[in-house]
Amino acid sequence: MKIYGDIQSGNCYKVKLLCSLLEIEHEWVHVDILAGGTQTSDFLVRNPNGKIPLLELPDGRCLFESNAILNYLAIGSALLPKDSFDLAKVQQWQFFEQYSHEPFIAVARFIAKYLGLPEDRRADYESKQEGGSKALSVMEAQLKETPYLAGEQLTTADISLYGYTHVAEEGGFTLSNYPAIQVWIDRIATHPNYVGMA
Amino acid sequence: MKIYGDIQSGNCYKVKLLCSLLEIEHEWVHVDILAGGTQTSDFLVRNPNGKIPLLELPDGRCLFESNAILNYLAIGSALLPKDSFDLAKVQQWQFFEQYSHEPFIAVARFIAKYLGLPEDRRADYESKQEGGSKALSVMEAQLKETPYLAGEQLTTADISLYGYTHVAEEGGFTLSNYPAIQVWIDRIATHPNYVGMA
Ligand SMILES: N[C@@H](CCC(=O)N[C@@H](CS)C(=O)NCC(=O)O)C(=O)O
Ligand SMILES: N[C@@H](CCC(=O)N[C@@H](CS)C(=O)NCC(=O)O)C(=O)O
Repeated sequence: MKIYGDIQSGNCYKVKLLCSLLEIEHEWVHVDILAGGTQTSDFLVRNPNGKIPLLELPDGRCLFESNAILNYLAIGSALLPKDSFDLAKVQQWQFFEQYSHEPFIAVARFIAKYLGLPEDRRADYESKQEGGSKALSVMEAQLKETPYLAGEQLTTADISLYGYTHVAEEGGFTLSNYPAIQVWIDRIATHPNYVGMA
Repeated sequence: MKIYGDIQSGNCYKVKLLCSLLEIEHEWVHVDILAGGTQTSDFLVRNPNGKIPLLELPDGRCLFESNAILNYLAIGSALLPKDSFDLAKVQQWQFFEQYSHEPFIAVARFIAKYLGLPEDRRADYESKQEGGSKALSVMEAQLKETPYLAGEQLTTADISLYGYTHVAEEGGFTLSNYPAIQVWIDRIATHPNYVGMA
């Protein structure tokens, strides 16, 4: 099994973290986005959307989208609830992540950390703050009620949202405004085989 | 079972279409976004993210995110593959929809159809065209290979992507550039109990 990714990307790190927690053996193939690694014809055959992470099975079948990869790799593990409504809640949080969280927090972080917040991107950066803060508030409300997003247990939903939340400060967000999120971040790092982003 | 939504929204229409195809009885509660219907305290208790569609079960439990609702309501039906990799492919397309498709096509359509393409939103509208066209190309490549996005059978992935694709012209996209998508659109409408958006 191969995973194509870049560990500095939160979307790729999610998959790395899950593989570590579940002790899933894999070959990590580093892809350099800035050098065009996701736009080669070789890569586009595997993911026509030209994005990492990408999972390639030994028989050559490929799967893209970080959250779909997480849920596939977690089948049969404790990271996916057995109850169907609980499982729907996991997906709810993952779609929330892709639509209401990542496009604000990951993009603000990218502009600040990787581009160095250049003047011509400042308006773009500023425009991400409100949406990102709102997403954090929605998470905070849930994490005041339950230790993990989908309830009592760590699930793939937590891994999906942990990816960019734990580095949200790098995008200009103030995590001390969200005490339940801070406790949750610390709680995730206590799991056996936890691995950090660096 | 109650579904809170507005049938003119593609995200809500997805749920309406699925309920029709699977003959799922429900009460449709119309929510008027422009009148602030998603921002009342009553609504925010049900979905702290303040968005429709929203599913409320008879016991009061709530689920948000259109694609999570589709997959929950489709449990046990032919719209979800039994094979775990095929099921992962369904989710792959649904995450693709939320991240690489809807934010371009739905937003361009909203600006053109609902706001009437005002001058001060034209740059925003234009900026959505490239990403939307790219998303349609990615779908087209798949639909040249298989009749439905996840393979031989209609799945919730098709419903997720049909929502805004079949009205993409309203966002300025030219569907005749994508013949396999056009055939797929027609194919979906032939399913028993199909219902349109209007
Ligand atoms: N929705 C996708 C997003 C993946 C994504 O945006 N990947 C970025 C790196 S974080 C990428 O590959 N960008 C290269 C490109 O778009 O050309 C997922 O969750 O996997
Ligand atoms: N990712 C969400 C998106 C839902 C969404 O954006 N809903 C819009 C209508 S299409 C809405 O409720 N907007 C009101 C608001 O954001 O205040 C889903 O798929 O359900």
